[in-house]
Amino acid sequence: MKEKFIQIEGHIASPQGYRAAGVQAGIKQNKKDMALIVSDMPCSAAGVYTTNRVSAAPVQHCRKLTPGNGLRAIIVNSGNANACTGAQGLRDAETMARQTAERLQCEPHSVLVCSTGTIGRLLPMNLITKGIDLAAESLAATGGPDAAAAIMTTDTRPKQVAFQMKVNEKTVTLGGMAKGAGMINPAMATLLAFLTTDAAVEPGALQACLAAAVAKSFNRISVDGDQSTNDTVLILANGRAGNTPLTPQHPDWKIFRAAVNEATLQLARMIVKDGEGATKFVTITVKGAPGRRAAARVARAIANSLLVKTSWFGADPNWGRVICAVGYAGAPVRPELVDIAYDGMPAVKQGQSAGLAPDILRGIILKPEFTIDIDLHIGQSSYTIYTCDCSDQYVSINASYMT
Amino acid sequence: MKEKFIQIEGHIASPQGYRAAGVQAGIKQNKKDMALIVSDMPCSAAGVYTTNRVSAAPVQHCRKLTPGNGLRAIIVNSGNANACTGAQGLRDAETMARQTAERLQCEPHSVLVCSTGTIGRLLPMNLITKGIDLAAESLAATGGPDAAAAIMTTDTRPKQVAFQMKVNEKTVTLGGMAKGAGMINPAMATLLAFLTTDAAVEPGALQACLAAAVAKSFNRISVDGDQSTNDTVLILANGRAGNTPLTPQHPDWKIFRAAVNEATLQLARMIVKDGEGATKFVTITVKGAPGRRAAARVARAIANSLLVKTSWFGADPNWGRVICAVGYAGAPVRPELVDIAYDGMPAVKQGQSAGLAPDILRGIILKPEFTIDIDLHIGQSSYTIYTCDCSDQYVSINASYMT
Repeated sequence: MKEKFIQIEGHIASPQGYRAAGVQAGIKQNKKDMALIVSDMPCSAAGVYTTNRVSAAPVQHCRKLTPGNGLRAIIVNSGNANACTGAQGLRDAETMARQTAERLQCEPHSVLVCSTGTIGRLLPMNLITKGIDLAAESLAATGGPDAAAAIMTTDTRPKQVAFQMKVNEKTVTLGGMAKGAGMINPAMATLLAFLTTDAAVEPGALQACLAAAVAKSFNRISVDGDQSTNDTVLILANGRAGNTPLTPQHPDWKIFRAAVNEATLQLARMIVKDGEGATKFVTITVKGAPGRRAAARVARAIANSLLVKTSWFGADPNWGRVICAVGYAGAPVRPELVDIAYDGMPAVKQGQSAGLAPDILRGIILKPEFTIDIDLHIGQSSYTIYTCDCSDQYVSINASYMT
Repeated sequence: MKEKFIQIEGHIASPQGYRAAGVQAGIKQNKKDMALIVSDMPCSAAGVYTTNRVSAAPVQHCRKLTPGNGLRAIIVNSGNANACTGAQGLRDAETMARQTAERLQCEPHSVLVCSTGTIGRLLPMNLITKGIDLAAESLAATGGPDAAAAIMTTDTRPKQVAFQMKVNEKTVTLGGMAKGAGMINPAMATLLAFLTTDAAVEPGALQACLAAAVAKSFNRISVDGDQSTNDTVLILANGRAGNTPLTPQHPDWKIFRAAVNEATLQLARMIVKDGEGATKFVTITVKGAPGRRAAARVARAIANSLLVKTSWFGADPNWGRVICAVGYAGAPVRPELVDIAYDGMPAVKQGQSAGLAPDILRGIILKPEFTIDIDLHIGQSSYTIYTCDCSDQYVSINASYMT
């Protein structure tokens, strides 16, 4: 059977049985700063988290609950990361879960918690409590866009997707939203992403599906090479569609998996396109590598090179900086074999200029989206990464972002 | 005996028996772009080079000649890196050596060659030839400052040092110059650095001395995390002072070694202070690490974090970004043990805010130079690195630097 799903206009609360809200709790000035996502019935849930050894309190809270069953809600605040806040931070994350559970009349361990924002300050719990009350009162099946706005930090626009597919002949909807903008690097970015579905999915299968999707989406993007303390991707599946619970053995498993892959990939691309100060979206593919790890190292070295990223911003067709990054990536590379192409046009052949006219190359770099393909010609493995340029805007955003 | 040397006003041609020149060959517009350093008598020589797998033709040329004896000169051009230029590039580097040797009436294999500038273009050999002629005609014992100016790329000022000491009761002079500015990262920066001395030094000892000095100086600095194809540090020792050749067994070895260490450290610090767009000089020391490699990983993660560097530029006392980098450095870290101090003032204790008033922290970050000490409290090893902030100037410099 063909892996078939369609994209629809929709949001995190589009699947049946979900409501969402986004409200102003006063943590940030004059902006929505708390989001709540609720399922009317218990969900199976899965999560993927930052690999940073310094992980925020809410990450530690969520790790204990996923993969799992019986989850009901996700409460999120922006403006404060609740990271590096010690035992009090953990208590605060648990209090967020408990207060949310009280308002929803469910169990505290059925509430997932996420925070994003400044590191090292205790949460303003009086505001958080007020925000939870407000959010619970504002819950609506149409509340997805408000929730997507409330999780933004330096994002300039909300990021939402929705898909529909058939599982056991029943219509299944998948909704998603994310925030990104800064501190974005493979192996989990500073990003929060949430997915909901009304499909029934067995928790272990949901976890495997999410982890595989993250590996090919959120872990393939880079804005600035920094890796956050708070990165979290969560998925809830409430079974309201009435399908036989999905597992890898289910005949429609591939459709569901493909939809989750597409949802995370689209959200990941939106994050890069909305990277702090970003003006260009660049897809880097390294092939001909002796292994996937080597291909990934080379791709990441290029994507994280400040010299490469600033040259894109300057529309400078400087392939020298690209091959320089290839050389220091720490992968086995034979410079005299390396080919580099921009949008398919060869710029470097066997480690030297291919003689491509600078005007042609400049014409490609001036585009808002282009690809760079690097062929190492020493093996069969490849790796793709999505990244953006680095503009003076990036610096001014991050120089002025307050502690 | 005490390791004693004094700093003097001087330059690369200050030691006895050296002459230097810096001239305009026309590779760059209206700027000096070729330098020549010549010893009147054969030298022992040592070199330390980039670890980038993509290394420029002149680097490959020099690697064959050092450590060694009988060296007479170093010819340098800026404006073109002669990197990724294949067999023709290697021939061009050799032609530079041969033409210089012809003008100096010495052997081609007694001439070291360095290039710095844009990657991927063949050298304009007609201009290079003209520059070699001009430089040879301009050689003078007072020519050090001209040479230091001619090797600059985006540097805003020349970088020179000189020291004197006694070896076998004879006065020995050590001169040095360097260029840096962009593409600076530990494990060799995009830098060229040259040292000359009139001491007699056995080549193997000279190589060991230089390698150790580079490990504690040029390999401890970071401007932007990129690592160049052309990094080269060379030292010439012509023996004109008449001392017994220095080896580690020589009674004055420690004095000489200390002077070389100090010369390279001063030049390295000058490079950071003149980093592209840099406004602050920051010394990061990681201690309490389980090993030197772990300490170095953590120090480099902080020094290369774009979020950390932009927050310094913005004078934002954002220790959260520092501890975040500690967490993703890939070293064993227990967040709840980490202490962080700015100029000795504790900002983080056991992974949480130490309650230092933000105004005090901001006061430190506003200074042009400050220190950050990170104690991991899990071992005995430490590592220090020197770095700078990242300003909007960095981006505009690198966006407009032409291919």
